[in-house]
Amino acid sequence: MIDTISKAQPLDQEAGQRVREYIDTLTKPPGSLGRLEELAVLLAEMTSEPFPSVTPPGVIVFAADHGVIEEGVSAFPQEVTVQMVMNFLNSGAAINVFSKQIGAAFEVVDIGVAADIEADGVVNRKVRYGTANFCKQDALTKIEVEKAIAVGFERAENMIQQGSKCLILGEMGIGNTTPSSAILAVLSGEEVKELVGRGTGIAPEKVIHKQEVIEQALEERQPDRNDPIDILAKLGGLEIAGMTGAMLAAAANRVPILLDGFICTISALLAKEICSTASDYMIAGHRSVEPGHKKALQLLGKEPILDLDLRLGEGSGAAVAFPILQSATLMLKEMATFRSAGISKE
Amino acid sequence: MIDTISKAQPLDQEAGQRVREYIDTLTKPPGSLGRLEELAVLLAEMTSEPFPSVTPPGVIVFAADHGVIEEGVSAFPQEVTVQMVMNFLNSGAAINVFSKQIGAAFEVVDIGVAADIEADGVVNRKVRYGTANFCKQDALTKIEVEKAIAVGFERAENMIQQGSKCLILGEMGIGNTTPSSAILAVLSGEEVKELVGRGTGIAPEKVIHKQEVIEQALEERQPDRNDPIDILAKLGGLEIAGMTGAMLAAAANRVPILLDGFICTISALLAKEICSTASDYMIAGHRSVEPGHKKALQLLGKEPILDLDLRLGEGSGAAVAFPILQSATLMLKEMATFRSAGISKE
Repeated sequence: MIDTISKAQPLDQEAGQRVREYIDTLTKPPGSLGRLEELAVLLAEMTSEPFPSVTPPGVIVFAADHGVIEEGVSAFPQEVTVQMVMNFLNSGAAINVFSKQIGAAFEVVDIGVAADIEADGVVNRKVRYGTANFCKQDALTKIEVEKAIAVGFERAENMIQQGSKCLILGEMGIGNTTPSSAILAVLSGEEVKELVGRGTGIAPEKVIHKQEVIEQALEERQPDRNDPIDILAKLGGLEIAGMTGAMLAAAANRVPILLDGFICTISALLAKEICSTASDYMIAGHRSVEPGHKKALQLLGKEPILDLDLRLGEGSGAAVAFPILQSATLMLKEMATFRSAGISKE
Repeated sequence: MIDTISKAQPLDQEAGQRVREYIDTLTKPPGSLGRLEELAVLLAEMTSEPFPSVTPPGVIVFAADHGVIEEGVSAFPQEVTVQMVMNFLNSGAAINVFSKQIGAAFEVVDIGVAADIEADGVVNRKVRYGTANFCKQDALTKIEVEKAIAVGFERAENMIQQGSKCLILGEMGIGNTTPSSAILAVLSGEEVKELVGRGTGIAPEKVIHKQEVIEQALEERQPDRNDPIDILAKLGGLEIAGMTGAMLAAAANRVPILLDGFICTISALLAKEICSTASDYMIAGHRSVEPGHKKALQLLGKEPILDLDLRLGEGSGAAVAFPILQSATLMLKEMATFRSAGISKE
């Protein structure tokens, strides 16, 4: 699989430079559209297009469960994962609403929910029924990790083949801020207590418990900082691996990836560990309230577009940020130039 | 005119409280959609609607000239105002592109351009051919100020009658950061040098000149801090007064106002001076690079939605922020509740 993955090309700096120069001919003071101008240049570098497009976007939500839920680390019971998958299929979740708003293709992949899902519409790619509790044993085998990455890769390639020009990856998995914080501790070398937050909303005293659970598990499991597959095998989870695979596919196909919040950014860091150029194809959609997210974004070297105190996941924050990417592409494509409009320059 | 203006009602706190409670029944962890939840509550308070809508929005761009341009305070010559009006009519400007993106009704009002505009499509409400140079005399008479406010009021009421559910006010007027900085100095009591920036992009040494021009003019004109009409008469300009009038109309009609950047926020401050409840109907779209904008937003008591280093004006930043307001309303209207989706709560 590493063969396919290593296909991610460096950015097209020349295409970026041409777009940068073209932007300065548009009817506005130079630089006055700030981040929109930077985003337009970045999208040109990613796609090699003089007028890159991000529409239609594609949203893939990966759902899976986490054995570590046994330790009492989440505000919601595990059954909520499958209930939320049903909610996605019935278009009732936040990510459905925002996907519809931005005209996105949308799919939900069962990559490891701990129950059978009897419903039309879900893409069944279950690798196993949830991870094992990483406090007691490895969350996954390395083979399962590679299978989950391959699932993500396949679903993203499918979405791209169907015409999606920008990918948004989302997740649903009760308990998944716990493995995400653990992975971040391994990758960043920071102390766990700096990275753990309230997730979906646990009480402050439970945050300390969650932190202790992670510290103890890291002590027991000893994941190898330099082996992302080992990290995923020891800590999980399947949806995190799935998003990583999807990002590798997008990067290999030069399709921009708009990142969501904390868990999605952990997948992004793992994708970067597997293929260092993959992160060139990523744009950070927003900064989450979850404390680890700020650190994860720093590690990835990305400044988010939005900072709206979101902490929902599902891809929702990326979908809310999407229209701003679209504004950047429309600026480039539709604005008049000083010459075409006959306007005096300074 | 003060009679019509004083119609702006206080916010409907009860409608806000009902929406706040309803949001906590939606299928997401409580509070996890952060600012979107706050925006939904605010829109309910403004409109008294349980499911407020902001679509379609309406964009009105007011164009006018400034006598103070004689003092060499701008990077562009005065003729650019009329050239940009033509660009608006030909759909080539940033605000055209973003208005189209958000499905907005759009109009351009000549409220005081210093030349005749021979073109279909512009709404001709010229109060006079640009303001006088406020270094030498008052920019406008008080009657002209009241006329300009009335023009803005009329155009906004017209836009609302045609069905616009959210107003975005934009401006075009070469030189207009100079009167805006001067007005802010009067309203805030801060030193001019803290409030003056590069506008459309003047050189650093010209920023100092711009600052001196403003300081000298304030010394000469002595605007009355407690009389917004006097401030506008002494400093101008017509598009600033027009936007103020439009905001007063929106507030009186309980229609949300999405604020753009520096100049627009100066109009907002003046609207608040005229009618203190008017600012309850305002949402700050973004924080501009122009240094005075941060101060103006503080004075208005608003936290912006976006911070993307924009400094274009025309209403462009507000239009780019608009989809986020829309996300807030769609969240409220389209998400399932825990009960309707059959999902377990913590």
